[in-house]
Amino acid sequence: MILHFLFLPNFRLKMRCPGVWIALCILCPCLVFGGKVLVFPIDGSHWVNMKVIIEELHSRGHEVSVVRSSDSWYIKETSPFYTAITLGTGSGFDEDFLSNFVAKLLEIQREGKSAWMRFKLEMEIMQSSIKMSETISETIEVLLEDKHLMQSIKDAKYDLVLTDPVSPAGAVVARYLGLPLVFNVRWTSTGEGHMTIAPSPLSYIPMTGTELSDKMSFFQRLLNVIVYAVTEIQVAFLLPHYKAVIEKHLGPDIDYFSLFQAADLWLMRVDFVFEFPRPTMPNVVYMGGFQCKPAKALPQDLEDFVQSSGDHGVIVMSLGTLIGVLPRDLTDEIAAAFAKLPQKVIWRYTGDRPASLGNNTLLVDWMPQNDLLGHPKTKLFIAHGGTNGVQEAIYHGVPILGLPLIFDQPDNLLRIDARGAGKIIDIFSMDQDIFYQGIQEVLNDPSYRMNMQRLSRLHRDQPMKPLDTALFWIEFVMRHKGAAHLRTESYRMPWYSYHSVDVMLFLSGVVLIILCTSVAFIRCLLINTVIKIKRQ
Amino acid sequence: MILHFLFLPNFRLKMRCPGVWIALCILCPCLVFGGKVLVFPIDGSHWVNMKVIIEELHSRGHEVSVVRSSDSWYIKETSPFYTAITLGTGSGFDEDFLSNFVAKLLEIQREGKSAWMRFKLEMEIMQSSIKMSETISETIEVLLEDKHLMQSIKDAKYDLVLTDPVSPAGAVVARYLGLPLVFNVRWTSTGEGHMTIAPSPLSYIPMTGTELSDKMSFFQRLLNVIVYAVTEIQVAFLLPHYKAVIEKHLGPDIDYFSLFQAADLWLMRVDFVFEFPRPTMPNVVYMGGFQCKPAKALPQDLEDFVQSSGDHGVIVMSLGTLIGVLPRDLTDEIAAAFAKLPQKVIWRYTGDRPASLGNNTLLVDWMPQNDLLGHPKTKLFIAHGGTNGVQEAIYHGVPILGLPLIFDQPDNLLRIDARGAGKIIDIFSMDQDIFYQGIQEVLNDPSYRMNMQRLSRLHRDQPMKPLDTALFWIEFVMRHKGAAHLRTESYRMPWYSYHSVDVMLFLSGVVLIILCTSVAFIRCLLINTVIKIKRQ
Repeated sequence: MILHFLFLPNFRLKMRCPGVWIALCILCPCLVFGGKVLVFPIDGSHWVNMKVIIEELHSRGHEVSVVRSSDSWYIKETSPFYTAITLGTGSGFDEDFLSNFVAKLLEIQREGKSAWMRFKLEMEIMQSSIKMSETISETIEVLLEDKHLMQSIKDAKYDLVLTDPVSPAGAVVARYLGLPLVFNVRWTSTGEGHMTIAPSPLSYIPMTGTELSDKMSFFQRLLNVIVYAVTEIQVAFLLPHYKAVIEKHLGPDIDYFSLFQAADLWLMRVDFVFEFPRPTMPNVVYMGGFQCKPAKALPQDLEDFVQSSGDHGVIVMSLGTLIGVLPRDLTDEIAAAFAKLPQKVIWRYTGDRPASLGNNTLLVDWMPQNDLLGHPKTKLFIAHGGTNGVQEAIYHGVPILGLPLIFDQPDNLLRIDARGAGKIIDIFSMDQDIFYQGIQEVLNDPSYRMNMQRLSRLHRDQPMKPLDTALFWIEFVMRHKGAAHLRTESYRMPWYSYHSVDVMLFLSGVVLIILCTSVAFIRCLLINTVIKIKRQ
Repeated sequence: MILHFLFLPNFRLKMRCPGVWIALCILCPCLVFGGKVLVFPIDGSHWVNMKVIIEELHSRGHEVSVVRSSDSWYIKETSPFYTAITLGTGSGFDEDFLSNFVAKLLEIQREGKSAWMRFKLEMEIMQSSIKMSETISETIEVLLEDKHLMQSIKDAKYDLVLTDPVSPAGAVVARYLGLPLVFNVRWTSTGEGHMTIAPSPLSYIPMTGTELSDKMSFFQRLLNVIVYAVTEIQVAFLLPHYKAVIEKHLGPDIDYFSLFQAADLWLMRVDFVFEFPRPTMPNVVYMGGFQCKPAKALPQDLEDFVQSSGDHGVIVMSLGTLIGVLPRDLTDEIAAAFAKLPQKVIWRYTGDRPASLGNNTLLVDWMPQNDLLGHPKTKLFIAHGGTNGVQEAIYHGVPILGLPLIFDQPDNLLRIDARGAGKIIDIFSMDQDIFYQGIQEVLNDPSYRMNMQRLSRLHRDQPMKPLDTALFWIEFVMRHKGAAHLRTESYRMPWYSYHSVDVMLFLSGVVLIILCTSVAFIRCLLINTVIKIKRQ
């Protein structure tokens, strides 16, 4: 296996970097051990992250199999890094729905359409979630019913299942085959997390989607508690779709949450430079920024454009892969604001060329985002706030002007804003003046850049690179056939025992009995005394 | 600074070990930075641990100053590794008291003396704790009142204060001088730990001294809650001794706990191979086994003795530095049991030679414990259960027969027993048969050795050596002048906000108002309807 590693195509390149020597020395025990990993990914942007880990697993000599649906556009059937196991079912991931949703949301918010329209749209996304969970449930059913396929997976003797907890498919199969389970995860949907990750006091751990920080006023804490309750209700709506298939194949004792609690390892796609500090567990590994790497040289034409900016530098704008097109009025406002700047702008935009576009702005269909953010001339990143982009900006120390749209984007950008390393603008009400002012502020107030560069220094100052840390722990689980010794007993307890409710009731009962007995005794004594006095 | 490292006396030796290359590569950023560390250690066995870190800090080119009391026997005035700052006050650490306490405890328990005697002894140790906290309080007062000394400490521009939280002296001085604070810690005395380390549900996190594991029955959980309450009361007794001096020098807003909560880093002297898994915090670093190292060759006479054991192997017995002598009847029982064994025994014992001592047993005043435990012929470690010895046994994979006496010893050994890697015998009621049976069981049942070797494999399988991890994070705090970004907001909240008590009261109030209004409304409606019906 060491030989396998040494003769990998990019080995010479790797050996120039001292980091590889370190990794080589540290990871010697696992290099002599080539494992087999079964991956259940989630389509879309989550796949981008999973692929980074899969490629690294492959480069370290592990065999990877990826379970994909036949309609997947992101997860290809053939790859040099993995073998695909293609299922006839759909993935449940509907990219068109998501981009249409964002387009409609922008239209409704900008044109001030009725609250009813907004509510209808919210219902659409709720229905889409239910539809996705139904599809995933069908996938699990099809997979487990295919005895031939399941036997071949069993015979392949995988060392672990690596999956995204957005779908329970991987967790179900891991339990079914008795394999160690590793999650690659950004958020946990069930808020408080007591039973999933670690105790999460609602007083300083904001719920996902609340746009709250870890410093909350009384009414913000109240909101956080209410959102928690609502989320629990929403989750209760989604669960029944999995209940039947889980009980059928794994037995009546197994519920949805116990599958997640059984994970050997949680690889979290954040770190505490980006995320607010919070309680954690021994089996949670933080690998935020694992996808970041030093910038490579730009293609010559792009480099020429960047260099032409002189001392003013360059602004990079991208709203992620989902949002290539924006409403025409909005693009005109953005283009007009850019046209006023002395900086050069590189804007990933796939729609029609806005009429107000200045000479300083280059529209591109795709950009080498990491290489651009790592370029010394880049002064500002205008971003929608996807986790990947934000982590890359932290890694390269580039301040952010954030235009969040949906999902975790407002929450991600709030974390940058709270550290003074960026500013958020409401894209729904923004015009060219607001946008221009925002750009000016982040460019000209040196605190934004200084704060982001401080985050960058903190993020980079780790004993090991985040990707190496993630791989170390995945291989640890393979070497030791799990990591049960890192899992707390909380996972095996009913909620009333976990929260000591039974003990408290018992103690209250004892106190009550002592009180009642004492009162009865004193009363009795008093009555006797009174009777005695009366008799006297 | 790199040059400084390269020309250290033992550099050549170091360079033979690949681990040093790894450390050198990883720690490059800190090798070019020599920091200044002010250490407030605790005397006795805690100093043994602190010294390991001090020596490593020194070997990496940092300057270390150690604050000691003039009566300290452990912490020497002169050392090649640190400069001493000697105070005229006592350390509060009374070694004689502790060994006398253990001797009396053994006598009382073995001779079946009255419960009253036992209670008196417990009170003695409580009084000793109070006396120690008074001495520490005086030390802080003397130190802060010595303006000349404080000015010289200020002028020395230390980068951080490293201390043991058994005494708040280091934490007070760190706050007084505005320096980053790092703790080197084994246990936290305040049980639940919500406000000190991390949320610690009493349902599966046993209180120190309870001899409970993380798997508790209802009545064990009840006991755990009661012990928590008692500990809180005990702590409340000790606190007033510090209150006056803290308020006088740091201001009325600062209380005892807030000093601890302000720590930048907690270096815990355990890991989750030894300790039961539990919630933790981003600024808690686990360095269990940091003092362990590969065994060196034994002195020739000891090696000859060990080799003379043939295939039977060797048993190593030590009850720690505090307990060199045991009651005569007990030593006779132990010696007689050893005499029956085919193994050779090396016993650290400083008392008179027992009459029943066999030819196979070697009494020694001192032993190279780590080198003996790492010797391939060593089959069993008979130990009192101090954290250091237990960690060394885990590191070398030697099963333990435990004879716990006081402090954390029963808890430490319980962790080994719970993993099936050792067995505990009650030293207070033990005779030669019980002892002999215990030895036979751990020697002949292969599960003990297999389980301990599994723990050893898990413990050794880390991305970095625990001592390197500890040093990385100490130097991280120096480089970034603290680690405030790893400290949660919980530390700044009053208890009622932290536990959302105010929010819950508010929500209950709202629910109550809605209920009352609804009831009043319905009542009003009903009355009106009845009146109307009556009128009709």
